[in-house]
Amino acid sequence: MKKINFNAGPSALPNVVFKKSSEAIKELDGIGLSILEISHRSKKFSEIISRAKDLTLEITGLESNEYEVLFLQGGASHQYLMVASNFLNNTAGYINTGTWSEKAIAEAKFYGNVIEVASSKDKNHTYIPKDIKISCDLDYLHITSNNTIFGSQFHEFPRTDSPLIADMSSDIFSRKIDFSKFDLIYAGAQKNIGAAGVTLVIINKELLKKNKRKIPSILSYQNHIDKQSLYNTPPVFSIYTCLLNMNWILKSGGIELIEKQNIEKAKLLYNEIDNNDAFYGFVNNSDRSNMNVTFGINKNYNSEKFNEMCLKNNIHGINGHRSVGGFRVSLYNAISINSVKILVEIMQKFNKEG
Amino acid sequence: MKKINFNAGPSALPNVVFKKSSEAIKELDGIGLSILEISHRSKKFSEIISRAKDLTLEITGLESNEYEVLFLQGGASHQYLMVASNFLNNTAGYINTGTWSEKAIAEAKFYGNVIEVASSKDKNHTYIPKDIKISCDLDYLHITSNNTIFGSQFHEFPRTDSPLIADMSSDIFSRKIDFSKFDLIYAGAQKNIGAAGVTLVIINKELLKKNKRKIPSILSYQNHIDKQSLYNTPPVFSIYTCLLNMNWILKSGGIELIEKQNIEKAKLLYNEIDNNDAFYGFVNNSDRSNMNVTFGINKNYNSEKFNEMCLKNNIHGINGHRSVGGFRVSLYNAISINSVKILVEIMQKFNKEG
Repeated sequence: MKKINFNAGPSALPNVVFKKSSEAIKELDGIGLSILEISHRSKKFSEIISRAKDLTLEITGLESNEYEVLFLQGGASHQYLMVASNFLNNTAGYINTGTWSEKAIAEAKFYGNVIEVASSKDKNHTYIPKDIKISCDLDYLHITSNNTIFGSQFHEFPRTDSPLIADMSSDIFSRKIDFSKFDLIYAGAQKNIGAAGVTLVIINKELLKKNKRKIPSILSYQNHIDKQSLYNTPPVFSIYTCLLNMNWILKSGGIELIEKQNIEKAKLLYNEIDNNDAFYGFVNNSDRSNMNVTFGINKNYNSEKFNEMCLKNNIHGINGHRSVGGFRVSLYNAISINSVKILVEIMQKFNKEG
Repeated sequence: MKKINFNAGPSALPNVVFKKSSEAIKELDGIGLSILEISHRSKKFSEIISRAKDLTLEITGLESNEYEVLFLQGGASHQYLMVASNFLNNTAGYINTGTWSEKAIAEAKFYGNVIEVASSKDKNHTYIPKDIKISCDLDYLHITSNNTIFGSQFHEFPRTDSPLIADMSSDIFSRKIDFSKFDLIYAGAQKNIGAAGVTLVIINKELLKKNKRKIPSILSYQNHIDKQSLYNTPPVFSIYTCLLNMNWILKSGGIELIEKQNIEKAKLLYNEIDNNDAFYGFVNNSDRSNMNVTFGINKNYNSEKFNEMCLKNNIHGINGHRSVGGFRVSLYNAISINSVKILVEIMQKFNKEG
């Protein structure tokens, strides 16, 4: 029996992605080859990656004459390095909303001056800094749109005259936003895009002109664009799962409809946390993430018992990140409202019995 | 009907890898989750990656107290950068046997002095330089053990007092060699290891002590070792395919037996090239690769017709690399002797009819 999977990532994907990718390993679209053995320079893979790029633009509403789409390797952690090596000529600003921002800042410091223009560290990253004032010219301003670990999320984005760069690993494709406000967006695939092992990068062509440093080929966005993500062998299978998942997003009504469902799922769960004596949320109400819901159990309730009840009911992946503790329920696109209802019922039962 | 796939990479994998990885996407080992949705920090994935490391050591005959095994992202092209950023403190030596060596050299130049201690460029990389004299202390000597594009291969490795580093992307696990002669070995998975998207790195612990430069975390071998390849989300599925393939290698009798089969396959094909008027080999006899067999068609024969005959007989992936032309037949571990026999029969038929 399949588990209800609230993993933070790698995480649940739509059933059609599992089904079609499993079939494609046996044989891809009747071509007599497995998806695992086709050349990345074959006509078939050309079609796959080209379609995946088109769908990325379609889902985000961005224009191909303004934005380039790349499928790279190394995850967001590798983008921390690429962003800074390509665009940190003098000084960059970073908003620190948690672990991932801190890692991005640490890598950027190898390339130039970094100003932490705002930080939520004073309250253990339980809120999103607002009314940020930027007093100097920045090469770019970098944010982490959703904090997977602490469960906070930007619901409004900072206004800036500098190029805006966002790590959207854990909330891309989960909500309708104005993507054109961003000059560079990157996201590890393993939440709402596809299987782990590929990183989506969307980059404004104007920003590319600002690269002044001579850097190794493998780090250069321009190089990867020139080679259309085929500078070296790409993660063929992971890219194929992205295509399957993006097809699913569009068939499900696009991110407008998916956002509605995501809000509904999150409301249901936060409502239970707020109205159930056994639980409390970690994050300021207005900054709560609709993707990663973090919460603790009040002292007079038995945390271990809640865990056991969840396991008995086939629920998986709700332990909080090791640096935070408590619980974390990730509500990515593939999670159904029914799965959340089952969890909420257990929370209610736990309140009565716990 | 499944094609006979002589792709240079991504390339044919054993049927059991296709079968089991396809099943694991539906459900992994009866755990109620797909391989695509398990956490990289789960007990299950811990077992997978730990077993894959153990099998790497078992296949290569290396000891865990001397060598570390990593599963990283970015392919060999990313290792060009990592090797140099970690270990090129002053001067490194590179043997240039073709495109991949040249790319490695270009990236290394960002970090220090590079001496091309030998090169086969004068004869378009159709041979392997021998009797190489190294006149100065090197941080390391770097070679490409097998040239996938030109079809040449080191059958004896250079002797050096410097640490020896090899890009073995296209011939690792294909033959029995003394792996302990090497201080660092890296290989993109997509030929003889597993699905594209993961890079195997084997590194001598003594070499690690020679890293003197402070570098970004994502580039640091020591960092990845400290985090046991889980510094950030790894390519879970690709690593799983590596495990399946390494299990297959050991069940097939290990690389001693696989090497025998690989030699037999290569002999059969080279023998046909040498004895068939229609064809000629590109590479010096003594330096020919047992993995990538490159050849051309003599002028009075119709190359197009040979192509058509192959296609009609369900043979796929034999076009030469775009920078070389002609034909290239890749004989990785998963290719059966029967597939080679079918090709040889077509070559004989072509000679008579062409």
